[in-house]
Amino acid sequence: MVKSFKIEDAAAKLVGKSTLLKTLNYIDTGGLKTPVLLMDGDRIKHNISTVGRGIDGCKVFYAVKANPSVEVLRLLSGLDVGFEISNQGELNVLSDLGVSPERIISSNPVKSTDFIKSAYSYGVRYFSYDSPAEIEKLSQHAPNSNLYVRLAIPNEGSEWPLSKKFGVEVENALTLLTEAKANNLNPIGITFHVGSQCNNIYNWNIALDKAHLLSDMARDAGITISLINIGGGYPIKYTKSVLNVEAIEKHINKLIKERFSDGSIAIHLEPGRAVVGDAGIMVARVTGKADRLDGRWLYIDAGVFNGLMESIGGIKYTYVTETRSTTGIKDNWTLAGPSCDSFDVIDKNVQLYEPEVGDIILILSGGAYTISYASEFNGCTIPKTVIV
Amino acid sequence: MVKSFKIEDAAAKLVGKSTLLKTLNYIDTGGLKTPVLLMDGDRIKHNISTVGRGIDGCKVFYAVKANPSVEVLRLLSGLDVGFEISNQGELNVLSDLGVSPERIISSNPVKSTDFIKSAYSYGVRYFSYDSPAEIEKLSQHAPNSNLYVRLAIPNEGSEWPLSKKFGVEVENALTLLTEAKANNLNPIGITFHVGSQCNNIYNWNIALDKAHLLSDMARDAGITISLINIGGGYPIKYTKSVLNVEAIEKHINKLIKERFSDGSIAIHLEPGRAVVGDAGIMVARVTGKADRLDGRWLYIDAGVFNGLMESIGGIKYTYVTETRSTTGIKDNWTLAGPSCDSFDVIDKNVQLYEPEVGDIILILSGGAYTISYASEFNGCTIPKTVIV
Repeated sequence: MVKSFKIEDAAAKLVGKSTLLKTLNYIDTGGLKTPVLLMDGDRIKHNISTVGRGIDGCKVFYAVKANPSVEVLRLLSGLDVGFEISNQGELNVLSDLGVSPERIISSNPVKSTDFIKSAYSYGVRYFSYDSPAEIEKLSQHAPNSNLYVRLAIPNEGSEWPLSKKFGVEVENALTLLTEAKANNLNPIGITFHVGSQCNNIYNWNIALDKAHLLSDMARDAGITISLINIGGGYPIKYTKSVLNVEAIEKHINKLIKERFSDGSIAIHLEPGRAVVGDAGIMVARVTGKADRLDGRWLYIDAGVFNGLMESIGGIKYTYVTETRSTTGIKDNWTLAGPSCDSFDVIDKNVQLYEPEVGDIILILSGGAYTISYASEFNGCTIPKTVIV
Repeated sequence: MVKSFKIEDAAAKLVGKSTLLKTLNYIDTGGLKTPVLLMDGDRIKHNISTVGRGIDGCKVFYAVKANPSVEVLRLLSGLDVGFEISNQGELNVLSDLGVSPERIISSNPVKSTDFIKSAYSYGVRYFSYDSPAEIEKLSQHAPNSNLYVRLAIPNEGSEWPLSKKFGVEVENALTLLTEAKANNLNPIGITFHVGSQCNNIYNWNIALDKAHLLSDMARDAGITISLINIGGGYPIKYTKSVLNVEAIEKHINKLIKERFSDGSIAIHLEPGRAVVGDAGIMVARVTGKADRLDGRWLYIDAGVFNGLMESIGGIKYTYVTETRSTTGIKDNWTLAGPSCDSFDVIDKNVQLYEPEVGDIILILSGGAYTISYASEFNGCTIPKTVIV
């Protein structure tokens, strides 16, 4: 079967020839159940070993939400990396894997009381917050924990701007730091999030300027800021060009050195997409084809609700079908998922060699925020994750 | 706890006092784990007994996707109603419940080969289609099955227009009927879908006009149309006023009688939302509150990804919080879910009495298309369904 795929340079560049080859070999062994998410373990290890390396004193906490499969978390639990979690379900998987609490932080600024109790009892001691209500809960159920306050910053140029739901302005943040200290808590840090899939390098400037200002104000108020959690947001390439991670980290490192010159500041980084995104290939199968009034439609067994939710938020994946065409000419397709829901349309104007019903279609880079959002809507299958 | 809720007339009217009372009693018994979807079994029975009654010769097939919980399906399996399914997962639940295949149809026009094999082997004999590729699959794996061809019709005035993903024009439909007959299949019907939550009664006129035209053309081509599957689409009230089901059915019945006067036509109806929507109340808990630059935010443990996905598609739910205010004045809130995703914002400008963290919030009418789309994104909990 491998022979029937013609892998173009663009696709090979995106996820790497080695990842593609492993995927094709896996498909070739037969008995393939689709949809399935194949994750290249070596690629994950490579990503983890490089991310954060350009920032002095940086500790990396993998954002579990990017790919919460037990297979990925088990692999990561054996490496030198921490974990960022937000709710009970994520803690459950990590505790089942025996991940020690020192490796776990929670940067969800608004946590349920039950989750706080449970995380604290497990031994987690690093929590984010951005409201007086959160101080009340943490003071009661997670006393003496280390807190980092979430700043609101502009998210222009990110695929998913996050700024409105969480975060406060500097003045409010100072009040929250003071209140935390007065309530049996240990306010030591500042956090922000530049937005997911961030492609505007100046978001980090504004964020670190604000953090610097707050840090100075806090010192004057008798609170020492010893931690900056710079969140995640590193972009990966889907079809459009993006900022290079090395360049981002060089930039961030310079900004930090300029602003926090005494060298005593710890940096926490929470990459998700940058760790798993290009390590995964979603393998789906063509279930049908139709000529509609608006062109050709291709139906596949992975869709918006069982893995490709980000396609409706603006992510444009790269797709590869088996090459049956002898003319070398591609057609223009609308790509739709397996449910009867009209919302379940993955992409339009996709150039593809015409496949047959039953053929395989590869979706690159499908490792991040795919199974994360997947549901069994309309009786569809949530893709299993397999490490190759 | 019941006393602390002040149920306003509008809310009571929406889901009925009896359903509300059952919900409050359930909450009152204590030990409540949120989020949870409470379904009033009597209300479901009532809805099933009324829907379709206004259309002569109408058989009702519940659209499983609207609420696929085993609890709801078990209740319905004991009533005089059939089921419409689209993929393997839905068949699995029904076969586990021992639902006989004569009660099951599949109106998914593009089914995977594996699902066709499995449904046919279970004994399902009614399938929708709208492409030559589907005829090929059905001819091979479901020979002699009864087929109904899907027409494309305008979906103006529906919350979810469905017309582009599925359906063909009349001329193409005639070709597909003829091709099915030539390929060992039994083309007997026509189907269409006016769109989910349809509030434009004239969609049914156009649909039945087209069906009538196709039926005449088919007769001339030697094919007898004996079934019209009119799909679903009946609206229920959330906050805006909607068409009354009795009025819709009176209208549809008249249209059918005018167009298919010989009385031999069978009608299949596939209600989903109209069966379960107002029978369900999602019970969630307040996890946090915050004052942001753009106003007050309320965070709850049910959100866009674990139950309230339709809120981003335009559904505006009615919310009821415990009444602690002594002033009787409501505040204006933005309502957000439990994940760290900025997309997880349920509603804006919601007028609510200010609740405390830990308080209950009721989401009416939450019975349809809630748990259907729910995922465990970011470690959040998929609401359990409980029949009350």
